[in-house]
Amino acid sequence: MAGDSGSWNEKIEEVVKGIVEGRIRLHEADRILGNANAAALARRLALERMLGVGLSSIGSTILDFEEIVGRNIENPIGAVQVPVGVAGPLRVNGEYARGDFYVPLATTEGALVASINRGAKAVTLSGGARARVIHDGMTRAPAFWTPGIDEAVRFVRWVRERIEDIRREAESTTRHGRLIEVQPFIAGNIVWLRFVYSTADAMGMNMATIATDRAAEWILKNYPGTARLVAISGNMCTDKKPAMINMLLGRGKTVVAEAVIKRDVALKVLKAAPEDIDAVNRVKNLLGSARAGSMSYNAHFANIIAAIFIATGQDVAQVVESSMGYTWTEVRDGDLYISVTLPSLEVGTVGGGTRLPTQREALAMLGAAGGGDPPGTNARKLAEIIAATVLAGELNLLAALAANELARAHRLLGRGGARSRG
Amino acid sequence: MAGDSGSWNEKIEEVVKGIVEGRIRLHEADRILGNANAAALARRLALERMLGVGLSSIGSTILDFEEIVGRNIENPIGAVQVPVGVAGPLRVNGEYARGDFYVPLATTEGALVASINRGAKAVTLSGGARARVIHDGMTRAPAFWTPGIDEAVRFVRWVRERIEDIRREAESTTRHGRLIEVQPFIAGNIVWLRFVYSTADAMGMNMATIATDRAAEWILKNYPGTARLVAISGNMCTDKKPAMINMLLGRGKTVVAEAVIKRDVALKVLKAAPEDIDAVNRVKNLLGSARAGSMSYNAHFANIIAAIFIATGQDVAQVVESSMGYTWTEVRDGDLYISVTLPSLEVGTVGGGTRLPTQREALAMLGAAGGGDPPGTNARKLAEIIAATVLAGELNLLAALAANELARAHRLLGRGGARSRG
Amino acid sequence: MAGDSGSWNEKIEEVVKGIVEGRIRLHEADRILGNANAAALARRLALERMLGVGLSSIGSTILDFEEIVGRNIENPIGAVQVPVGVAGPLRVNGEYARGDFYVPLATTEGALVASINRGAKAVTLSGGARARVIHDGMTRAPAFWTPGIDEAVRFVRWVRERIEDIRREAESTTRHGRLIEVQPFIAGNIVWLRFVYSTADAMGMNMATIATDRAAEWILKNYPGTARLVAISGNMCTDKKPAMINMLLGRGKTVVAEAVIKRDVALKVLKAAPEDIDAVNRVKNLLGSARAGSMSYNAHFANIIAAIFIATGQDVAQVVESSMGYTWTEVRDGDLYISVTLPSLEVGTVGGGTRLPTQREALAMLGAAGGGDPPGTNARKLAEIIAATVLAGELNLLAALAANELARAHRLLGRGGARSRG
Amino acid sequence: MAGDSGSWNEKIEEVVKGIVEGRIRLHEADRILGNANAAALARRLALERMLGVGLSSIGSTILDFEEIVGRNIENPIGAVQVPVGVAGPLRVNGEYARGDFYVPLATTEGALVASINRGAKAVTLSGGARARVIHDGMTRAPAFWTPGIDEAVRFVRWVRERIEDIRREAESTTRHGRLIEVQPFIAGNIVWLRFVYSTADAMGMNMATIATDRAAEWILKNYPGTARLVAISGNMCTDKKPAMINMLLGRGKTVVAEAVIKRDVALKVLKAAPEDIDAVNRVKNLLGSARAGSMSYNAHFANIIAAIFIATGQDVAQVVESSMGYTWTEVRDGDLYISVTLPSLEVGTVGGGTRLPTQREALAMLGAAGGGDPPGTNARKLAEIIAATVLAGELNLLAALAANELARAHRLLGRGGARSRG
Repeated sequence: MAGDSGSWNEKIEEVVKGIVEGRIRLHEADRILGNANAAALARRLALERMLGVGLSSIGSTILDFEEIVGRNIENPIGAVQVPVGVAGPLRVNGEYARGDFYVPLATTEGALVASINRGAKAVTLSGGARARVIHDGMTRAPAFWTPGIDEAVRFVRWVRERIEDIRREAESTTRHGRLIEVQPFIAGNIVWLRFVYSTADAMGMNMATIATDRAAEWILKNYPGTARLVAISGNMCTDKKPAMINMLLGRGKTVVAEAVIKRDVALKVLKAAPEDIDAVNRVKNLLGSARAGSMSYNAHFANIIAAIFIATGQDVAQVVESSMGYTWTEVRDGDLYISVTLPSLEVGTVGGGTRLPTQREALAMLGAAGGGDPPGTNARKLAEIIAATVLAGELNLLAALAANELARAHRLLGRGGARSRG
Repeated sequence: MAGDSGSWNEKIEEVVKGIVEGRIRLHEADRILGNANAAALARRLALERMLGVGLSSIGSTILDFEEIVGRNIENPIGAVQVPVGVAGPLRVNGEYARGDFYVPLATTEGALVASINRGAKAVTLSGGARARVIHDGMTRAPAFWTPGIDEAVRFVRWVRERIEDIRREAESTTRHGRLIEVQPFIAGNIVWLRFVYSTADAMGMNMATIATDRAAEWILKNYPGTARLVAISGNMCTDKKPAMINMLLGRGKTVVAEAVIKRDVALKVLKAAPEDIDAVNRVKNLLGSARAGSMSYNAHFANIIAAIFIATGQDVAQVVESSMGYTWTEVRDGDLYISVTLPSLEVGTVGGGTRLPTQREALAMLGAAGGGDPPGTNARKLAEIIAATVLAGELNLLAALAANELARAHRLLGRGGARSRG
Repeated sequence: MAGDSGSWNEKIEEVVKGIVEGRIRLHEADRILGNANAAALARRLALERMLGVGLSSIGSTILDFEEIVGRNIENPIGAVQVPVGVAGPLRVNGEYARGDFYVPLATTEGALVASINRGAKAVTLSGGARARVIHDGMTRAPAFWTPGIDEAVRFVRWVRERIEDIRREAESTTRHGRLIEVQPFIAGNIVWLRFVYSTADAMGMNMATIATDRAAEWILKNYPGTARLVAISGNMCTDKKPAMINMLLGRGKTVVAEAVIKRDVALKVLKAAPEDIDAVNRVKNLLGSARAGSMSYNAHFANIIAAIFIATGQDVAQVVESSMGYTWTEVRDGDLYISVTLPSLEVGTVGGGTRLPTQREALAMLGAAGGGDPPGTNARKLAEIIAATVLAGELNLLAALAANELARAHRLLGRGGARSRG
Repeated sequence: MAGDSGSWNEKIEEVVKGIVEGRIRLHEADRILGNANAAALARRLALERMLGVGLSSIGSTILDFEEIVGRNIENPIGAVQVPVGVAGPLRVNGEYARGDFYVPLATTEGALVASINRGAKAVTLSGGARARVIHDGMTRAPAFWTPGIDEAVRFVRWVRERIEDIRREAESTTRHGRLIEVQPFIAGNIVWLRFVYSTADAMGMNMATIATDRAAEWILKNYPGTARLVAISGNMCTDKKPAMINMLLGRGKTVVAEAVIKRDVALKVLKAAPEDIDAVNRVKNLLGSARAGSMSYNAHFANIIAAIFIATGQDVAQVVESSMGYTWTEVRDGDLYISVTLPSLEVGTVGGGTRLPTQREALAMLGAAGGGDPPGTNARKLAEIIAATVLAGELNLLAALAANELARAHRLLGRGGARSRG
């Protein structure tokens, strides 16, 4: 009703004023107005006034904040819109993903979608990308303080002996999560217990944290010796930082995708010979990364990972470790074998940002929205598709580099000729 | 007119059919329809039909693809919407950023904005965050092949001697870019030349690539010896991979933010004592990262970096190296000194995704949209604000971990008492 | 007899001439003369003549080359003499090493022995160093080529299923070696199998190599699929290179040594307060190593490791990974807790250089020469003593740095006062 | 005289008793007896008695402790003897080392000398190894504490402005040392100044420490702001730990050695084809090291480095970083190009252990004993020879691995055939 609307307008204006005048803090708007969308509006209007800027584009959103405040965001004022392009068809021969896929990519970097698209064409023309999830486990590693090495050793031994109790406690907090193992590490008197869980279709970090929190509390309550919890995350998880522990022991999904690119496909679609692509991979991705002190041996996994993560509602900060990995090439009878290995691809199809409307549609495009049947199959399907897309993107960039330098060499040769004549 | 509209509908339907039947490829829609928005619609409708999914949310966008296809995206079908929350006010005492800021954060991870907000409160109550950009340079490092070490050495020497020519060539491609230096590295017969540019308000990777490409071509044309370009990016740049070369020599902005959190602020706002926060930082961020084989010594820089990068139109794949860095704490007369050091924060306020409507508004909120006056000041202002926000987020998480474990200890002590009575 | 002697002299002279004139190659001397000591002499004399240098010091050796050529050396000309100093008594409270030890250190670096000695005094006065071996396993990791990820996965699965056969084969080559486990790693189509052995009192690399070689041959012969061995060592062992895999999963012995240095001992013996030592450890060993891109967080483990390795006949090239590790300090009620953690200390008391006369005496000083009873106890005893010695050396250097800077500060303060008066 | 001798015997026996009974400490023997050799004897006899072991082999040494106590060792009891084998002739085409060399290798690892020897043969038959020192500078990096980032920046700027004063101070402590540059690094409020020196023929760490100590004192005295020295070595030097800073910026000598091994030499001498050696290098040294989280991409540089370091009196603890580096191979028209790059080879021909008799002879064999003319040329000559020897050792191992696996494949093929017939 108009009356209500007027009343709303007044209430909102009051809050706007309150914020502008410093009497109301940003997060108080929700409580005062009792409606998350109204609060978002009030905050936006207040900020426009305070900062002297227009925020109408951010305000133009289909999001219903009543559904998402507290779950996905706090203090919302609207949404940012990231363009979504599509690459495909990309043929994937996975264990969970089988068929031709159209991959949604949210990015603002020109040429990225086109680049992946060309790679996808070459892969698909060559019969598609084989993809396999070879490890699956989300981790959380609390750090414990003990008085010394003897107690540290006793503590680790006790944890091992009581693993069934610990599992029961941890799993009591979750429907789908299963504790796979606990990996202990020691430095002097400090102990990390790296809990590894299977988390079905969820990326699982929250699940892992809650379960580990319960397990840690049970441990502290029952351990007869002396141990204190320093932090429920002791950085050996390792979340959102590059770390060799994830490269070696995995976090999330460890996925491999590979293809054999036929020579004529390489030459016609990618304009580069297998030998030249192989040479670029070797100098750039292997020796170059080694020389730079990188722990990631690829050209641009992160471009593809970031674009799919934003599109499908993944935790974008996890691009850090999800994008780490190895590109490997071999020339085989004139064709090009190429593989990408991603040791810690952290993805889910339920929870987090996957439930937001645009993100859920992006997942639906891949036939991977929501929980899989049986549980876990959707997340693995997504992981396989991502790895295959990374393969396509990597292949294309290596080929483009090889082709460019070849073209340049020819061009310079011509010039050189001219020069020598001059 | 209705007639035109009918005509449009028919044309689009034709393209939709063509795509569905495999006669038209996704990227051909733009050329056939002559309009990027119509093409986006056609692709979306076709995919809905082919995949049996609804994409109306993705289709509900304010983006005008006529403006952005080819610059920011290819094969668009719409946009993904990421909720934007605001943390602030956050007081920043930078060289370029001075005052209280409201920081836009695009994320789908619940509690993140609230967490940064609380950290911001503690920082602001303590007088704000000091922030400094201590290095500024975007890099591109082509890899060259030479026959052997003698030629490699000669090549490097020649490049050094002709640096003015190389600078002229490189800078001829750019209005704002300036070549600062060329850092040579050798492994056997392979040479990398790491070109470092100041790029004003642009993040500058494209600028650096184009300038380096021109420089490389000039070098190849004029170098009297034998050298071939393997790849214009030889992975010593290092872009979108974690790498020690960036940690040591910087890439983009090297920024430090710091604050002294007063003891009573720590206790009241953060519910944790400086000593406990310091202990968590030491065990988790220093020893834990060391033990995990990480090269990043912090708790969750990446969360903050990713949220600001998405909101402000940065290259999100660069979250990888932009989020690397060090958190350092000291207890000083009962207060807490805390600093964050980000060696390779790659940000810009012009170019890339910064020109899109919602992203530009997010930058405007920070008073950092578009080119600065003088050039470069907006990008540095943005860098300082980001570092200060990272400081707030890091402070809050360390404090929360410390407070949680303290609370748990108290709880267990109570329980333990109960238990001993039972 | 004189005749024999004359005959010997003539034969040797003939060989010397042959070498000098290029008719005889260095390694042929043994076969021609039929005596390793004579051959060593001939080579030495020839080299003296060819190079115009005197090698009489190198020639002055107690070594009997008849015993060691082919086992420890080829083409010998004598020996190098490295001075051996002794640090001690050092009290060790280990599981295998208990008591006060005098540690032989072979070094040419002045002040090293004295430095360790002072640390040993502080440790011993504080009740000694606790030491524990928390992991024990020598590794060898062959790399296999397979056609692709499916075969790689099959191969790994097959190896796991046939682990008992593989164990039988591996262990058939050794009396004391036991195969603990096989850790598989994959990158695309390449598979590494990291074999982990308990090797009793031997350092065990040769044992591990021979056993793995047999196992690999059995695998290749019996595996029904397609797999080729690329190299019996695929660098994931990892031998003689720094590598995170060893830091995380161990190689050789993982050992921790710790002590609580009483405050008055720190002040009187080490001239430094626990707080200052702790501060140096934190800035130098933790933050400094992190900032340098090191994967080793200590001050000078390598100094102590190298000196004991040379003295006791260890494989000195393994100083590389044996010296990696973490120093951790805490101030506890005014005292200093300090621990050193060495994840991959590779030592033995039988085999290799341990059988040479001077080296064996050095081991005997520690009560750790030859095989232990039960097997393995001597090597672990040695590991504990080494860790305790590393602790002593590390403690002393940190304290010296702290004390020096303190002294300097006082000195400057005085000067500063003078200056301000001037 | 006998009387003197008797008197000596008595005095020594008295000290022996004193040590055994705990009245005299090990290091007091020198002062009491007034003679280092007598003190060494007394300590040895005391230890023999206390520990119930014989130490006569260690006692059988040519070392005159009067010359070396305090310079190279404290608390000596004798020497350890390490067998020295010779590999060669090895042709080196360096800038400083030219000709055929016989390389002394002190090792107890059987087959090592033979292995290097075979590699040397292949290299020499192919025309020799080219070697180049491409960087030369010893470093020491004190860590300074400042109150915050502003002061840190001011401090660094001030140091840059006063660099000539600092150079004067630093160089006032040394005859040959020259301060090349000071590289500053910052993390929050902590500053490292990495001093880089040319140190002529000395390895130079002591020289660098003394000079930096003086410079640091001058800085602290004159800097008008607030800065404290935490440690004269802040671990960014980086000494005796693996660190990327050394890989990127060098420490000691950065050296490259390379050779083109002719195809027939590879096949005849090394029994392996260039393609197979290249494949092993790629899978093992590049991908394998990457997968292991190593920062060193070679097979066994450390074996060769350790053996030469012991033989020639280098600081053996520096094997850690001196042995790090890259092996790179290319197949060129059927021949094998191979290079080794050692970024931080720390060697000298004066000072430290180089003055001991056996070690000096070993250096003399290479024509590199003592100071060069002009200064610095001997150390560089030694560096070139070492790199060339590393090349030989690396080549041989890669070839042996390739040949072994080939042989095994043939053998298995035979067996496989038999098996298939069965």
